Amino acid sequence: MRLHTYFRSGTSHRVRIALNLKGLAYEQVPVHLVKGEQRRADYLALNPQGLLPLLEDGKVRIGQSLAIIEYLERIHPEPPLLPADPAGEARVRSLALICACDMHPLNNLRVLKYLKHPLGLDQAARDAWCRHWMEEGFAALEARLAAEPETGRFCHGDRPSLADVCLVPQVVSSARWATDLSPYPTVRRIHEACMELEPFVRAMPANQPDAE
Amino acid sequence: MRLHTYFRSGTSHRVRIALNLKGLAYEQVPVHLVKGEQRRADYLALNPQGLLPLLEDGKVRIGQSLAIIEYLERIHPEPPLLPADPAGEARVRSLALICACDMHPLNNLRVLKYLKHPLGLDQAARDAWCRHWMEEGFAALEARLAAEPETGRFCHGDRPSLADVCLVPQVVSSARWATDLSPYPTVRRIHEACMELEPFVRAMPANQPDAE
Repeated sequence: MRLHTYFRSGTSHRVRIALNLKGLAYEQVPVHLVKGEQRRADYLALNPQGLLPLLEDGKVRIGQSLAIIEYLERIHPEPPLLPADPAGEARVRSLALICACDMHPLNNLRVLKYLKHPLGLDQAARDAWCRHWMEEGFAALEARLAAEPETGRFCHGDRPSLADVCLVPQVVSSARWATDLSPYPTVRRIHEACMELEPFVRAMPANQPDAE
Repeated sequence: MRLHTYFRSGTSHRVRIALNLKGLAYEQVPVHLVKGEQRRADYLALNPQGLLPLLEDGKVRIGQSLAIIEYLERIHPEPPLLPADPAGEARVRSLALICACDMHPLNNLRVLKYLKHPLGLDQAARDAWCRHWMEEGFAALEARLAAEPETGRFCHGDRPSLADVCLVPQVVSSARWATDLSPYPTVRRIHEACMELEPFVRAMPANQPDAE
């Protein structure tokens, strides 16, 4: 398998964690987002949306991190990233989607660029925007993770799931906007539990071949 | 089943379509987003995130539209909204996620509110913001739908899937910002094919009990 990735892309980070948790070997193809390599003709020929990540598995090409991870879950079910029971599966997906739909899309590179131009927001206003959506999302995650009995050492019970796969990159990227995580002790505890595991450490931005 | 919904919420719209396609009866509980009813204590007790939609199925409560639809797919598999083969399933999810992650999160009510206050953007700048992300998303969808051989009468083959369930509310809401859809003929063709089906018509915002 080949993963088109950028070390600091939060969605690429998710897929790296999932591949590592499942023990799958993969080749990395770095695509430099800040230099705009995702808009190059050769990459657009593979992924017309011009976004990362993209997984190639033989002739199968998949964009969108959650579609990739669900595909990995389907073809390499062990260890599972989703619980076996329908209610648990729905809970894990709903936690993952708080990160994937309500946090990350508002804080990624293309949105930050639009805030700068044409909107003309300065760095302080852009940082405040990012922190606002981070705080909304982490508050929602904390309210649920702290209250719901299914929470264990990780987001759902005592092994990592798709929810942790999405939570960790969100916590990591929140540091770029100096987000204060002290109001979210359960989020922090789970993040720390994840970071004791080698698959999460190996997936970190700083540990990628294209890290700067 | 009970669905907490708002007639004009695009994510509620998705779930209504999925319930209708599967022939499932459900009770609607209207939550008025513009009046802020999603922040009322009784709703927050059910869904601490304070967003719509929320499905109650006996004791199971699920937020996040895609988690709800995947749950419906699991417990009521017929008719399927995902293809049986892993590559097709990944394709449908990736198309759905273009709407769910790259379009809708940038154009929903809470984001529009923030653009107005504290950012102080006027109506024209807010509309331009919405159209920009709509156009980026529709261009990506069109590029894929027009080129990929799996596209049929609908996004994937000749029956509606999760991709159509997400596409239709996006097309419907794009009209609110006078988005020009003429550059996206395949998107328009598929939308029209969907709107020939009763489950899609019945799910339309104007046909809901709380429509204004």
